[in-house]
Amino acid sequence: MIQQYEFSLPAFPRGYHLITSKVLAQLSDLPQTGLLSLFIKHTSAALTINENADPSVRTDFESIVNYIVPENLPFLKHTLEGPDDMPAHIKASFIGTTVTIPITNGQLNLGTWQGVYLCEFRNHGGRRQLVATVYS
Amino acid sequence: MIQQYEFSLPAFPRGYHLITSKVLAQLSDLPQTGLLSLFIKHTSAALTINENADPSVRTDFESIVNYIVPENLPFLKHTLEGPDDMPAHIKASFIGTTVTIPITNGQLNLGTWQGVYLCEFRNHGGRRQLVATVYS
Amino acid sequence: MIQQYEFSLPAFPRGYHLITSKVLAQLSDLPQTGLLSLFIKHTSAALTINENADPSVRTDFESIVNYIVPENLPFLKHTLEGPDDMPAHIKASFIGTTVTIPITNGQLNLGTWQGVYLCEFRNHGGRRQLVATVYS
Repeated sequence: MIQQYEFSLPAFPRGYHLITSKVLAQLSDLPQTGLLSLFIKHTSAALTINENADPSVRTDFESIVNYIVPENLPFLKHTLEGPDDMPAHIKASFIGTTVTIPITNGQLNLGTWQGVYLCEFRNHGGRRQLVATVYS
Repeated sequence: MIQQYEFSLPAFPRGYHLITSKVLAQLSDLPQTGLLSLFIKHTSAALTINENADPSVRTDFESIVNYIVPENLPFLKHTLEGPDDMPAHIKASFIGTTVTIPITNGQLNLGTWQGVYLCEFRNHGGRRQLVATVYS
Repeated sequence: MIQQYEFSLPAFPRGYHLITSKVLAQLSDLPQTGLLSLFIKHTSAALTINENADPSVRTDFESIVNYIVPENLPFLKHTLEGPDDMPAHIKASFIGTTVTIPITNGQLNLGTWQGVYLCEFRNHGGRRQLVATVYS
């Protein structure tokens, strides 16, 4: 059986944000056993699963990923929308548009330290639209 | 219900290529609600979702990803197949082998600016084999 | 139909390890047509699909990914757990927590050169917990 939910999340500042509870608030009761596929309908933001406890992990994410994918590389052509735009597209493909999470005993079967991140790569990204598909 | 399709795409030059319509042409009518899982059976090419409008985004993808994962790093051992080979494996794991896309109202529920990319990392990659699984 | 299996794998040394047969050993007979979703319940290890033949690919993976995501970057704050910790979180999100593999004719439909890797990013990661969900 498939259930699907489409919803938007409020604008987040550039950076990495825990959204596990915001996503769960959008879903009806989860099935006993199944999978959640969560998809973001954008190309300059991403979804991932990472450490859910220490906020400095999210701060370091921002610093390290900016170090690996720097702005203002001299060879870029797609620069009209600002220096944060093209790096945002690369980050989106490295980190990914979908997370798939097992559902076990009616709950997301995440590890103790796992949470869902919305990764906002734009300086002013605005609201972001997500689609959650639950199948069982 | 599960439907599965296996097909190959013609050889693409090294770089990033929009294949959304080529993939859809391989599938029968999509279900009203479901998911498409698209898988590439190779380790030196990848699938991702990114910007579907400005070709300079795809050109910049090639430049930036080559900047992040350079060829000819002096410490490499797996070099027999040429300088593009080992970087291709790394890019394949960073960008990924699968995309999962929600199906809503009988269509892929992509964002306005989203398209499916085939990322060809080899200089002469040849035809690439894909498996599409649609479940509903 | 959904079948789900949760199991742990023994501790691996830091690096990249082929686990395809170890995963298959945990599953009952696969369905004729379906998908396997494999999930790792950790934020400093990852799953990916890559080259299954030459061990030097896995050695080069370790070297290149360490080159791209170096340890001891001077601006980091989350450093209490050692220099391998924060880079491990970044690598986990770049490479990913899930692999999704089509099942065709009762077998994983991997390409000739594809195998499943467990990527251990910590110096002493310990046992790792996985969840396999098979749907058909």
